[in-house]
Amino acid sequence: MAQDEPVRQRLLAEATRLFAERGFESTSVQEIVVSAGVTKGAMYHYFDSKDDLLHEIYARVLRMQMDRLTRIADGPGTVSERLYAAAADVVETTADNLDDSKIFFRSMHLLAPETQKTVRAERRRYHERFRDLVAEGQREGVFRADVPADIVVDYFFGSVHHLGSWYRVEGPLTGGQVGAQFADLLLTSLRPQAS
Amino acid sequence: MAQDEPVRQRLLAEATRLFAERGFESTSVQEIVVSAGVTKGAMYHYFDSKDDLLHEIYARVLRMQMDRLTRIADGPGTVSERLYAAAADVVETTADNLDDSKIFFRSMHLLAPETQKTVRAERRRYHERFRDLVAEGQREGVFRADVPADIVVDYFFGSVHHLGSWYRVEGPLTGGQVGAQFADLLLTSLRPQAS
Repeated sequence: MAQDEPVRQRLLAEATRLFAERGFESTSVQEIVVSAGVTKGAMYHYFDSKDDLLHEIYARVLRMQMDRLTRIADGPGTVSERLYAAAADVVETTADNLDDSKIFFRSMHLLAPETQKTVRAERRRYHERFRDLVAEGQREGVFRADVPADIVVDYFFGSVHHLGSWYRVEGPLTGGQVGAQFADLLLTSLRPQAS
Repeated sequence: MAQDEPVRQRLLAEATRLFAERGFESTSVQEIVVSAGVTKGAMYHYFDSKDDLLHEIYARVLRMQMDRLTRIADGPGTVSERLYAAAADVVETTADNLDDSKIFFRSMHLLAPETQKTVRAERRRYHERFRDLVAEGQREGVFRADVPADIVVDYFFGSVHHLGSWYRVEGPLTGGQVGAQFADLLLTSLRPQAS
């Protein structure tokens, strides 16, 4: 398996680059295998289709983020500290993998309905874990409870998913700096309201 | 001009419906004119190309939102009241025109580079007016100044642009309710920080 990884990684890297450059729609499997320097047979050993490649480009980032979220959410610290860390982390890891999510959000509607359903379910699990953290703080009275936790999650992840439209790796801010500022805005917005 | 409007509106409405259903890439000008019940000549009287139709679908929403923002920002009220109203308004008007922005964000990368540049400039003007409102509150000491106004705008408009991925017109919340909650989260996140 370990020695197979380079081919799989190379296919993902070349597919990401080509989808970013010319769009998912306009990139053929043929172009991907030529760029990666592998045969079509090798590609179909790892991926069922072009859909599968696009799905995997996003799914590997999501899996990594889910692992990190689980570690942070189940780890030590107050609920405020854990939510701050989780929020900053998802911004930073999204900024670090910006092409992947940009390509994905742009082209998700072109995937087969079943693949779209799978991705939605995977992302829902992520959002639910994040939402549980918000709800935990609401139950403890640390966060305001007058805005539903679901709305807070939709609000925050809009900002995360939209990083691709303005954030530039070569710009003045690191992903970590944006992460700290977004996490700070989120935590502040959740302070219990004086009535 | 007034009697021409129905044809133009019908073309925009049919293009929106078709782009939403089958994607911008997979819809031909021929299908649009057939659906709208007009000739190709009539279509080219109003629009230069399919690109132009897509651009206009978004641009007309943006123009309406810019008019409303200008009226709110230059109107009466404290800066907190005006920012709250502006934030709630852009969420509500986006929710009311959800297909338009959904289609647009999905397909913007397929437009000619020059058209993309025009749209970015139009949207930048909108964001700048919104940012000026945040900066006004920061100068007055009503809003925290430790997070740059630009970051606040990117944070908030991520949530707005992403409404299309989760908000459902037939769901439990009206656009006005989501607008009130998003605006509340924004205003709360801007409270000056006790050090």
